[in-house]
Amino acid sequence: MNLAQSVLSGDRLALARLLTLVENNTPEGRDALDELFPHAGKAHLVGVTGSPGSGKSSLVNQIALHYRKADSPKRVAIVAVDPTSPFTGGAVLGDRVRMRDLSGDAGVFIRSMATRGSLGGLAQATAGVVQVFDAAGFDVVLVETVGAGQAEVDIARLAHTTLVVEAPGMGDEIQAIKAGILEIADILVINKADHPGVDNTERALKSMLDLAHPVEKVFRHHGQAMTVSAPIGAQDLALWIPPIVRTVATEGTGVAGLVESINAHAEHLRRSGDWSKRERARLETELDLMLTETLINQFRAQVPDSRYDEIVNRLTERTLSPWEAVKSLMNGSGL
Amino acid sequence: MNLAQSVLSGDRLALARLLTLVENNTPEGRDALDELFPHAGKAHLVGVTGSPGSGKSSLVNQIALHYRKADSPKRVAIVAVDPTSPFTGGAVLGDRVRMRDLSGDAGVFIRSMATRGSLGGLAQATAGVVQVFDAAGFDVVLVETVGAGQAEVDIARLAHTTLVVEAPGMGDEIQAIKAGILEIADILVINKADHPGVDNTERALKSMLDLAHPVEKVFRHHGQAMTVSAPIGAQDLALWIPPIVRTVATEGTGVAGLVESINAHAEHLRRSGDWSKRERARLETELDLMLTETLINQFRAQVPDSRYDEIVNRLTERTLSPWEAVKSLMNGSGL
Repeated sequence: MNLAQSVLSGDRLALARLLTLVENNTPEGRDALDELFPHAGKAHLVGVTGSPGSGKSSLVNQIALHYRKADSPKRVAIVAVDPTSPFTGGAVLGDRVRMRDLSGDAGVFIRSMATRGSLGGLAQATAGVVQVFDAAGFDVVLVETVGAGQAEVDIARLAHTTLVVEAPGMGDEIQAIKAGILEIADILVINKADHPGVDNTERALKSMLDLAHPVEKVFRHHGQAMTVSAPIGAQDLALWIPPIVRTVATEGTGVAGLVESINAHAEHLRRSGDWSKRERARLETELDLMLTETLINQFRAQVPDSRYDEIVNRLTERTLSPWEAVKSLMNGSGL
Repeated sequence: MNLAQSVLSGDRLALARLLTLVENNTPEGRDALDELFPHAGKAHLVGVTGSPGSGKSSLVNQIALHYRKADSPKRVAIVAVDPTSPFTGGAVLGDRVRMRDLSGDAGVFIRSMATRGSLGGLAQATAGVVQVFDAAGFDVVLVETVGAGQAEVDIARLAHTTLVVEAPGMGDEIQAIKAGILEIADILVINKADHPGVDNTERALKSMLDLAHPVEKVFRHHGQAMTVSAPIGAQDLALWIPPIVRTVATEGTGVAGLVESINAHAEHLRRSGDWSKRERARLETELDLMLTETLINQFRAQVPDSRYDEIVNRLTERTLSPWEAVKSLMNGSGL
């Protein structure tokens, strides 16, 4: 039995080993991914992003716990991605905190990933890890990213459902950031909802949502997922209005409602046909990342190091512009 | 006189127009960049990144003001990059705040950039905009990024000197993030240093710095740039110890000391030879970004849309894996 087959048979040690191979982008990992690919495509991929300090990790914990405690428990994988940390320190600490609640539960698997090399590399490695969990039969894969930058947005694009987590009292600059992040939110969560300023935060999020989704303004409710028909000219199309859900993750408050919203969104995606649209977009992105990497590697293999160094020398002397350098390298390569 | 020549002659309208062309990656913008390239390479590029809510924009304002008020005022450009916002809302608001202090000063030019398309695209556009300012004779280019993700790190890599700005009382999660960000910091700033918790923040930053730079631990001072000799085996190499500088940007407190540190770092880079090393690394990154974009565009132009769609269809049916898809596309293209 090879590694991919062991993973499909439910072997946790094989799973852990394969995740490492995939993270390191080894040929063996790539082969296993190829073999697992036909078995993936069933899991509900949930991205969780938002401001630092919003308590995302605790919330992800609680969501996992909730899925595990249900009448028909789901198998849950957690992928914690930290694009800013080349160290494992933060991630390991996070894992230890999680352990208290989730350790010893064979229906849960937690994996931390830190940055290695390029951003494209991290997004690609995350896509691979998610695919392994999917093929291994996990029903829900929670992908948590620290921070709220473009890296997080790119990684969130892997997901079917994206949660953006906010906390009260984070100041105006945060609010400005959220304008961009809101574009990708399927569900907005105000965690630490027992803190002062929660009404202000909700008001701010709502007015920004109104800017981003003006048509849907009148339909918005709190803490509740809503699917409504578009008002004019598109009566047959179901619209998803991002609900705003309040939680206190440390006490588990509001988590049941949040999981309901997550499930309602999955149902909405399936009914509207958006599930397969997102799946297609996701696979296309993955293909493009891989294609780009392959092209650049192949190209660089054809250019002798001495020639490349000479070109860079001329750049630093400013006797050749970057664009002229590209043209010169492309001509020389015979492409 | 063409656009590039007008920019070189100091025409502000031409400058604004060229920045837009470069941001939009137009052929005219590219040609002008080519023409300006030999004139660039003189400006001190200063990256400013750090947590949302740390008051980076005010601080950048104050740094610019300080340079303007000096005995021999420097020409300063500010590039405010917001990788999370596809809207201009936040950026425009920021500009309006800046206007109060800096408007009417011909020695200052402010440009806001929001995300357009891919992350690579934003980093490339930022590099182009910075190069235009450099060629146009601005002595200092301040590149401010909102957030603390990988995108910001990539953009900070453009800079000779990178400031990481923190504020007191941002919680533990922030601290974990900082571990990664610290790697790129040449100068650490604790802004809002009149807020409670400033000593805790400084202590946390210091212990993380000690982890990142263990050898230099004993040499660390506050609020002061230090250049020391490495202790053993490298006596001839000057080491830069990232100083921790406290500021209150809203009152201008500590800004003079910060600018001293920035200038000391530039001097250190020049003396140690790191200036040209960073310049080379920067130009190499720029070349690689451009090369990648050119390769993928050229490749996609060779693959008929129908063939690409068919491949993506087979991916969504899971009858072809992404890696098999890449191989199939590469074979078909004749590369």
